[in-house]
Amino acid sequence: MSQYQAPLHDLRFVIHDVLAAEAEFARHGAFADASRDLIDAVLEEAGRFCVQVLAPLNRSGDEEGCRLEEGAVSTPQGFREAYRQFCEGGWTGLTAEPEHGGQGMPEVLGAAVKEMIDSANLSWGMYPLLSHGASEALKHVAEDWQREVFLKPIVSGEWTGTMCLTEPHCGSDLALLKTRAEPNPDGTFAITGTKIFISAGEHDLTPNIVHLVLARLPDAPAGTKGISLFIVPKFKVARDGAVGARNAVACGSIEHKMGIKASSTCVMNFDAAEGYLIGQPNKGLNAMFIMMNTARLAVGLQGLGLIERAYQNALAYSRDRLQMRSLSGAKRPDKPADPIIVHPDVRRMLLTQKAIAEGGRALALYAYLHEDLKQKATDPTARQRADEVVSFLTPIVKGLLTELAVECTYHGLQCFGGHGYIREWGMEQFARDARITTIYEGTTQIQAIDLLGRKIMQQQGAGLRHFLGEIGVFCQAQAGNPALAEFTGPLARHAKDWQALTMEIVQRAGGNAEELGAAAVDYLFYSGYVALAYFWAREVAALGPSHGAGFRESKLATARFYFQRILPRTGLHAAAIRSGADNLMALPDALFAV
Amino acid sequence: MSQYQAPLHDLRFVIHDVLAAEAEFARHGAFADASRDLIDAVLEEAGRFCVQVLAPLNRSGDEEGCRLEEGAVSTPQGFREAYRQFCEGGWTGLTAEPEHGGQGMPEVLGAAVKEMIDSANLSWGMYPLLSHGASEALKHVAEDWQREVFLKPIVSGEWTGTMCLTEPHCGSDLALLKTRAEPNPDGTFAITGTKIFISAGEHDLTPNIVHLVLARLPDAPAGTKGISLFIVPKFKVARDGAVGARNAVACGSIEHKMGIKASSTCVMNFDAAEGYLIGQPNKGLNAMFIMMNTARLAVGLQGLGLIERAYQNALAYSRDRLQMRSLSGAKRPDKPADPIIVHPDVRRMLLTQKAIAEGGRALALYAYLHEDLKQKATDPTARQRADEVVSFLTPIVKGLLTELAVECTYHGLQCFGGHGYIREWGMEQFARDARITTIYEGTTQIQAIDLLGRKIMQQQGAGLRHFLGEIGVFCQAQAGNPALAEFTGPLARHAKDWQALTMEIVQRAGGNAEELGAAAVDYLFYSGYVALAYFWAREVAALGPSHGAGFRESKLATARFYFQRILPRTGLHAAAIRSGADNLMALPDALFAV
Repeated sequence: MSQYQAPLHDLRFVIHDVLAAEAEFARHGAFADASRDLIDAVLEEAGRFCVQVLAPLNRSGDEEGCRLEEGAVSTPQGFREAYRQFCEGGWTGLTAEPEHGGQGMPEVLGAAVKEMIDSANLSWGMYPLLSHGASEALKHVAEDWQREVFLKPIVSGEWTGTMCLTEPHCGSDLALLKTRAEPNPDGTFAITGTKIFISAGEHDLTPNIVHLVLARLPDAPAGTKGISLFIVPKFKVARDGAVGARNAVACGSIEHKMGIKASSTCVMNFDAAEGYLIGQPNKGLNAMFIMMNTARLAVGLQGLGLIERAYQNALAYSRDRLQMRSLSGAKRPDKPADPIIVHPDVRRMLLTQKAIAEGGRALALYAYLHEDLKQKATDPTARQRADEVVSFLTPIVKGLLTELAVECTYHGLQCFGGHGYIREWGMEQFARDARITTIYEGTTQIQAIDLLGRKIMQQQGAGLRHFLGEIGVFCQAQAGNPALAEFTGPLARHAKDWQALTMEIVQRAGGNAEELGAAAVDYLFYSGYVALAYFWAREVAALGPSHGAGFRESKLATARFYFQRILPRTGLHAAAIRSGADNLMALPDALFAV
Repeated sequence: MSQYQAPLHDLRFVIHDVLAAEAEFARHGAFADASRDLIDAVLEEAGRFCVQVLAPLNRSGDEEGCRLEEGAVSTPQGFREAYRQFCEGGWTGLTAEPEHGGQGMPEVLGAAVKEMIDSANLSWGMYPLLSHGASEALKHVAEDWQREVFLKPIVSGEWTGTMCLTEPHCGSDLALLKTRAEPNPDGTFAITGTKIFISAGEHDLTPNIVHLVLARLPDAPAGTKGISLFIVPKFKVARDGAVGARNAVACGSIEHKMGIKASSTCVMNFDAAEGYLIGQPNKGLNAMFIMMNTARLAVGLQGLGLIERAYQNALAYSRDRLQMRSLSGAKRPDKPADPIIVHPDVRRMLLTQKAIAEGGRALALYAYLHEDLKQKATDPTARQRADEVVSFLTPIVKGLLTELAVECTYHGLQCFGGHGYIREWGMEQFARDARITTIYEGTTQIQAIDLLGRKIMQQQGAGLRHFLGEIGVFCQAQAGNPALAEFTGPLARHAKDWQALTMEIVQRAGGNAEELGAAAVDYLFYSGYVALAYFWAREVAALGPSHGAGFRESKLATARFYFQRILPRTGLHAAAIRSGADNLMALPDALFAV
């Protein structure tokens, strides 16, 4: 009974007016063909596909789940046909390079499309998501013949890809990885080991599946410096592209999960399976990070998609459900009770979802815009700057939007009361589906360490400097604008505090390494909330007469709600950081239970 | 694979040392027989039953669920046998009056037992929970013959009870209730209507089920002033107790839910079913509130039980799972990696669960102790005071502990990483089961309005005054104790702010009724966190040499964690309250989507 409408209005507002994507592209000599009209047409067509084809399969996919029989996984009814139409529409190659059969469109547009896919059907979206990660790795690291033979069929959608990283004893810690790769006389490798939690590891959407597998060569150094990346197709593929016999890779079982039940999560057994090395020996982690960073941003979009979908349904229900009168007097005396949207706390829950969905959309698309500039800006300095920005924002987009997806799908369900807990209403599925997003592709804890340990400490906070610089320029540019003062004031104060807090942590971590881990998750949230404040201020600044009075009023009220009711969360996170590591580290492990 | 140990050590510490229950009873002339030894023996026996009988049925009950065939509901395998043993052990009547066949033990002990039942198997615990609520209503409102005929078999466990309130169009708003009761010539009533979300409405544990049903008499006033309460048994029962033919009440369907799948949630159709009026006509809401308040505290215990269970498992996993090295150097160089409990953010998640479980236990049992004093203290002034305290704390216990159960089962799952999302590990079930607790027996929003609208505004905050008075006495008594200063200082400041914040809201709500609704949920959280701070300070104050050095260190470190990392959440809630209602009310309903 859950509904979904494509949020085309807000997507266009963010891409064209808030981020001014076309002007950015023009300034950097990129995507000359991606006109406003073309982007709008793509968004509209994608929205139609998501609403008409994918959304109706969401509940049934959850109820039906995937089935494993004799090593073959069946996806739920309708998934194959939807995937066929998706390929026919050219969607699998939307952002891929024309030389690989793609349409060469910007990632920021691909991200907007992906948000809608994830809103409509998160489980179904997992299959193309994994292909996109594998494509990126192949594009950047593979040899020419490998791109010809493996990348092109993935871009066309004829085959899908996977990322085979995790093993039973090693998830976050890839240093413990055990899967082995023995060289064969013909230049291929024999891959042996067990991988778990492999999304799209086995399914019935395509005849072949291209596994990208992390494994150790003989005599490889221990730890993460001894990991290489291999292509292991389900059916063997020769260097000329000829598809041969079944390879020695098999799905041993599929997981029974809390949610994303229509996404097949496989245990994959490699038994001397034939594979090709991609990139340099022992440099597999670099290639893995290409896939991983793509996937991390994509999981942030999953969070966004679920927030949007939960919001749309909670709003519709709150307008419809009659229960009690407004405390300030009946608002609909013609009805037996008022719709619950009159109650302040229902509005708080709705506005939280709205503010996070719309602010989060600007944040995520801004990151993707920098992914485009990183790859396509003509000026190398601009490319490097964009790289630093997107690398800094990736853990924030992933960590913040997935944690807030857990919160917002909670609010959406709560608006429904008891009906929210009943499967047929669909709200509980969003909460269950959201719960994986803070875990896979690196838990929130891993994102936080990546942000603070790698992006701030190791990379001297280059991305943060760019981002703070931008906020400074924005606040200065708006200094004479009284309509913006209620936003730029708190924003500028927060930007200053953000910098100070960062310096404090860096100094403290110098004296005690535990301070970094003790601060990391709160720092991620702190950073995320300030980033959202920046994008909400930009949304208000981007409003003009052409947007219509209702749209302007809606944005302005939501921005105020964000600044007054959500942004103050930063105070809690700053206090937690400043309370230091001792309150976490003092208790000996043995005394956690006495 | 989920484990459970009965937290007997901490339950005894709270009951005997923190709350000094026996001394309180002695002071108020109540429960002379409830000695420390007897209480300990009951706890131990209950713990054994929960661990050995109930806990092993938790996962299988979730997988199997309830089945409805030809109007009859089958509970999962093992549930009937467990219920039989439960009755045989006399547990159904533990806190019931001896004159009704009960054992006359205090509710505070019953609550400790109930926490363990809920940890072990929340779904199974729903069946006795509903009986307990029905018992309380019958005890206080029913006529003698009704108590003889209906209450005694519920106390013995021979029959179970239900609460039939909700209808499809009315959940929170009982004024909309439509079920009708027509008088029959023989003094009984014919009840007609449909009730939904009826827990334990139909099952195979007992041969008869006693439904307590809200309905309207002919010509009853509109709204909540025209609601009466009726006993409607599944099989008719004559005034002499003789069980007769099947009554015209039937289970039309059972709900498919996110969790508590082994608890049957029924649509109950009453088709001129024969019932007896309980209490006065049109005064059904009073009787309903007796059941409801009992049930609200009990749902708070459900939250507590899930937090404890999630914590135990997250702790065991975090000690066992090896992943990465501590940032301050290897802690287990003999192993391939350190156990994840070395990582600060894992500790933060564990300590959050520990601090909420142990502090929440003291809060909940304190409320139940006042339930005992309210019913059994010899002095009427003491009874009234206890009534005001428990009435004030009920929405806090229910609202806070269930919301924190959602948070803490989230943390527990997160500690497990990807394995937390897989059903066989059991952690995701706790998160799903927890999700109903913020909804049923009144949503968090309803609790918050009850707290601020009824307990503060209408009752002039009598309960709050008693509670603040107690905190003041405690802080004064500890004024000379340097070991307590780090806790009593912030506690006294918060108590003062709590009072000021309350006054501010009361004043503001006078000018604008929406301010009450806009503040309510944040006020509930604010109140709850200060209450937990008070109980953590009392836990530290109760520590003595007899508790052992490890126990003392564990409590002290957890109290510090609570005060430094959790209590500051009050700042966020105070800021939200002080930001006022405008940021929630300004946006016209029509502009929530544009």
